[in-house]
Amino acid sequence: MDLHELIQSLKTDGGKIVMVVSDGIGGLPLQPGGPTELEAAKTPNLDALATKGVSGMSLPILPGITPGSGPGHLGLFGYDPLVFQIGRGILEAAGIAFPVGPNDVCLRCNFCTIDANGLITDRRAGRIPTEESAKVVELLKAIKIPGVEVFVEPVKEHRFVVVFRGEGLGGNVADTDPQVTGAKPLDPVAKDKESEKTAQVAKQFFEQALVILKDQPKANCLTMRGFAKKPALPSYQELYGLNAAAIAVYPMYKGLASLVGMELVGKPQTLQEEVDVLEQNWDKYDFFFLHFKYTDSRGEDGDFNAKVKMIEELDAVMPRIAALLGENDCLVVTGDHSTPAKMASHSFHPVPTMIVSNIARTDSCQKFGETEANNLGGLGHFQAMHLMPLAMAHANRLGKFGA
Amino acid sequence: MDLHELIQSLKTDGGKIVMVVSDGIGGLPLQPGGPTELEAAKTPNLDALATKGVSGMSLPILPGITPGSGPGHLGLFGYDPLVFQIGRGILEAAGIAFPVGPNDVCLRCNFCTIDANGLITDRRAGRIPTEESAKVVELLKAIKIPGVEVFVEPVKEHRFVVVFRGEGLGGNVADTDPQVTGAKPLDPVAKDKESEKTAQVAKQFFEQALVILKDQPKANCLTMRGFAKKPALPSYQELYGLNAAAIAVYPMYKGLASLVGMELVGKPQTLQEEVDVLEQNWDKYDFFFLHFKYTDSRGEDGDFNAKVKMIEELDAVMPRIAALLGENDCLVVTGDHSTPAKMASHSFHPVPTMIVSNIARTDSCQKFGETEANNLGGLGHFQAMHLMPLAMAHANRLGKFGA
Repeated sequence: MDLHELIQSLKTDGGKIVMVVSDGIGGLPLQPGGPTELEAAKTPNLDALATKGVSGMSLPILPGITPGSGPGHLGLFGYDPLVFQIGRGILEAAGIAFPVGPNDVCLRCNFCTIDANGLITDRRAGRIPTEESAKVVELLKAIKIPGVEVFVEPVKEHRFVVVFRGEGLGGNVADTDPQVTGAKPLDPVAKDKESEKTAQVAKQFFEQALVILKDQPKANCLTMRGFAKKPALPSYQELYGLNAAAIAVYPMYKGLASLVGMELVGKPQTLQEEVDVLEQNWDKYDFFFLHFKYTDSRGEDGDFNAKVKMIEELDAVMPRIAALLGENDCLVVTGDHSTPAKMASHSFHPVPTMIVSNIARTDSCQKFGETEANNLGGLGHFQAMHLMPLAMAHANRLGKFGA
Repeated sequence: MDLHELIQSLKTDGGKIVMVVSDGIGGLPLQPGGPTELEAAKTPNLDALATKGVSGMSLPILPGITPGSGPGHLGLFGYDPLVFQIGRGILEAAGIAFPVGPNDVCLRCNFCTIDANGLITDRRAGRIPTEESAKVVELLKAIKIPGVEVFVEPVKEHRFVVVFRGEGLGGNVADTDPQVTGAKPLDPVAKDKESEKTAQVAKQFFEQALVILKDQPKANCLTMRGFAKKPALPSYQELYGLNAAAIAVYPMYKGLASLVGMELVGKPQTLQEEVDVLEQNWDKYDFFFLHFKYTDSRGEDGDFNAKVKMIEELDAVMPRIAALLGENDCLVVTGDHSTPAKMASHSFHPVPTMIVSNIARTDSCQKFGETEANNLGGLGHFQAMHLMPLAMAHANRLGKFGA
């Protein structure tokens, strides 16, 4: 019996779960013995919650492994990131919140330029500005392929997403980017029998695109990369019996949430608006994923003080979130990974995490921070993929295993 | 995707890693509440490193499992000891630092004595002294078997190693030691089809040996045990991209290191000389395994105070090792298992471990010892096989998993 079979067999009705993901919240002290960003921040509300709840350290993947946003979130959602891998094309589609279906093959395309002999002169079409690129993408929407639905969506600069929707389309097709200039784009070649139709479709797409792009001055060709189907993920409904909502500002996180069957609610632009959306939808869902981006962004900038400020912004909205919780409900505060300002990048360090619930075994933590969670946290160190079962348990949503 | 595939897909260039393995360093208090050997020792240098780094407890195999030196080291080197098992013959060959190749079958042989009817009278040939035994081993080097290279090497007393090298030699052959006196040595019987040639070769070896040994007064026969091939271990180079050096005094640890593709450097006889070798070879390798034997030896002796002294010897050389570390480098101090003087044997207890690196998340540990590592260690409890990914991460040698 694997973890998912176990959870599915034990799931019951119970309280609501709010999972607040402060992206990249874990940090590092600038000097040995100094505070991390979270420890340097003034967080009276998070600290009060940590005092009422139980803390611990979440390992996003495995010791020493730094996750990207995709695997980082899959882990938090309870899917083993080493089993459920998200291909590049899917991640790109998720990044524009494209609603990927089970019959879809997604690929990331780059505009490029070719000379009169068809040889690539610029693999990124001079990083054509997004506005101009979007217009050229618009032209490609005219492409029709019999028996297959085709979607073409702009992303940024030379990048765009293509989705082929239809029966019998495998996701295992080689990239057509030759990785060098002075060469022709490669043919899309199927790497297994199930993907032969996809390779044919991709070839037709490319041929029609060449005709359409022929006279485009800035982008007269394209390459295709990262062909991928949606991983066969059981949905939140199937796995947990949860009617789940995602509240996020950035498309990437909306996309990841929709991959596991969460509904995207509201169009918030700020953290305050995200909490507005949470309040407005409180009665409609069992589970809320609320994503806060800027702790990661300021960490990536390498700006310790700015990240501290973002954490303080998060702290300021916590009372509004906590006020929603009823008797059986459960609040989780965590991150998908650490993003220490000192490293200006995602890192492998464990992520401080807390669960607040009336049946949490309160520990000795009186602050929300790496040191207290590590030294005193009642959840210990655990793999992120075990956080959802913990949340379910703390919301009275898991029955007893065995008699 | 398994751990090794993951690490292989993420490995990059980065800093150097020094792994100091103080054999059997973990201990036990003599009285409840008392200090362990490591805690009783005066270790100002290890304590300063623990203050700068991050500590934790390494579980050599799984909770409650006491490892031998083979699995203990395989775990530290990042190979799941339950997956990659080292046969007795291989361990014996490693113990004399015999360079085992992929076409080799190794076996451990014992001299014995037989009577006129061929029945065993002493299974260990009266524990024939090592010097005499070595001379008899020398005679066996005359054995020739068509199509197979044969190596015969002395070990200690009645024990010696035989290696058959050739194509098509499986490692699955039954022991010939009948385990009792008054019986004839058994035939070497193949336990699978792939090992039939090996059994034939072993039989020929035995028959020729009988002729050579016929008139030896102290050892006129032999038994064969622990037939084994080298486990199919990916090398340090393949797995981690590390150009690795092993610095050890004792042959067993050199042998284990060479099984994973480390180069054996220097011929140190003392800990000081081991550090000399480390300094002299600093520019030539990415990874250094430095093995210190005597913490285990004194633990095995059951001599608490002598083990404390050995730990203090280790402490004394730490500044020389730490002085080598550059910006991106990483130092690991650990053990392959605990050897509490109180038990006078290897034990299952977790092993205090620390990692020093500029990107370690410093914890509250100010001493290197079991109690602090357990109560305050930022690495928590982890399986030894995750130590190498942690070391790689702390030396900036692992890329991000997924986008």
